[in-house]
Amino acid sequence: MLLARVIGTMNATLKHPAYDGHKILLVEPLSDSLERMGDPFLAVDTVQAGVGATVLVAREGGSARLAVGDDRAPIHAAILGIVDFAGDRDVR
Amino acid sequence: MLLARVIGTMNATLKHPAYDGHKILLVEPLSDSLERMGDPFLAVDTVQAGVGATVLVAREGGSARLAVGDDRAPIHAAILGIVDFAGDRDVR
Amino acid sequence: MLLARVIGTMNATLKHPAYDGHKILLVEPLSDSLERMGDPFLAVDTVQAGVGATVLVAREGGSARLAVGDDRAPIHAAILGIVDFAGDRDVR
Amino acid sequence: MLLARVIGTMNATLKHPAYDGHKILLVEPLSDSLERMGDPFLAVDTVQAGVGATVLVAREGGSARLAVGDDRAPIHAAILGIVDFAGDRDVR
Amino acid sequence: MLLARVIGTMNATLKHPAYDGHKILLVEPLSDSLERMGDPFLAVDTVQAGVGATVLVAREGGSARLAVGDDRAPIHAAILGIVDFAGDRDVR
Repeated sequence: MLLARVIGTMNATLKHPAYDGHKILLVEPLSDSLERMGDPFLAVDTVQAGVGATVLVAREGGSARLAVGDDRAPIHAAILGIVDFAGDRDVR
Repeated sequence: MLLARVIGTMNATLKHPAYDGHKILLVEPLSDSLERMGDPFLAVDTVQAGVGATVLVAREGGSARLAVGDDRAPIHAAILGIVDFAGDRDVR
Repeated sequence: MLLARVIGTMNATLKHPAYDGHKILLVEPLSDSLERMGDPFLAVDTVQAGVGATVLVAREGGSARLAVGDDRAPIHAAILGIVDFAGDRDVR
Repeated sequence: MLLARVIGTMNATLKHPAYDGHKILLVEPLSDSLERMGDPFLAVDTVQAGVGATVLVAREGGSARLAVGDDRAPIHAAILGIVDFAGDRDVR
Repeated sequence: MLLARVIGTMNATLKHPAYDGHKILLVEPLSDSLERMGDPFLAVDTVQAGVGATVLVAREGGSARLAVGDDRAPIHAAILGIVDFAGDRDVR
């Protein structure tokens, strides 16, 4: 799992019903000092995270499907929670 | 999942029947500002995306097999949809 | 699996019950000479590792779920043990 | 999946019977302009590809096991086919 | 799968019984010319490889569990065999 920051939203025309009712957000990975680290990617939101929020993200198919509660969803990244504290600082 | 742009087509002589009727496209990953980011790869098309289209891609075996609806397909990347809006811009 | 050092703690507001009772730690990957190597990430603790400890980490969904003993947990990294010796040196 | 070029053969003393009768080849990933891109790796051949051939490779456990038709094979990369055309050029 | 060289041993205090009786070795990935390529990692030995040996390594959860013959082992890298020849040279 990794720390990430929500940096934007995305809309797409998707055929698969597993995406109905789920928002897909653009996130950027963060280091332990909360600096951007590596390439942004897309994750399904499960906690109504807003742009700018620091979040805990799962980036693996099994975890993402378990997080949204749908074993047949073609997703492999999901936001699991809002981070309150990381490393040595409050982030909320 | 990631944003990507379709950059070309590919033809190969493939033995596995799971590939019948599926087009394989060359895609390049895109950043949140829609710049090329990282190495191009191959993804099975499920939405009839054209060259130049901005797409949402799953890059994981489970997700790709779920997207094409075949649990026995030896594929691990699939185009899931056409992106309309990403970050802060329309892309269509 | 990889060598890593625990570098901090993290608190998040998480919906999924699989996270109840598990501490999530920030870890940094280590080289064979125990230098930081690559980007830090988050792993579920299973051995009560303290900050500064050198640990053996699994970074794959199946292994992490087996380590915590919950096939439905949306996690993909877990600390498996405390390292006593690595390469050519004692680390405890 | 990715484009790759076969760059060599390999022989190893392997205990696991799943490797019997399968050739393991050294391949290098290729960009859309068919330049080497990233680190070489090993893939099980399923199509009798020769050194120098441009091939379509699956680099994921599930796909590789499906490609060789053995759910118990400890392999995670397999050559799926010979590429005839990629991007904007014939490669055969 | 990849070519790797065994560069050291590791001892850790591990709770999980799947690790009983298995040696965990430090390995470094090798290029086709047998140069170090990328970051070292840990792999379960299945062939009694010594330090300095050139080995074939699986680096994926499913393959590693199949290689040790334990579907419940929290491991995702395993040494599958000793390499005799790779690319254009004998390595034994």
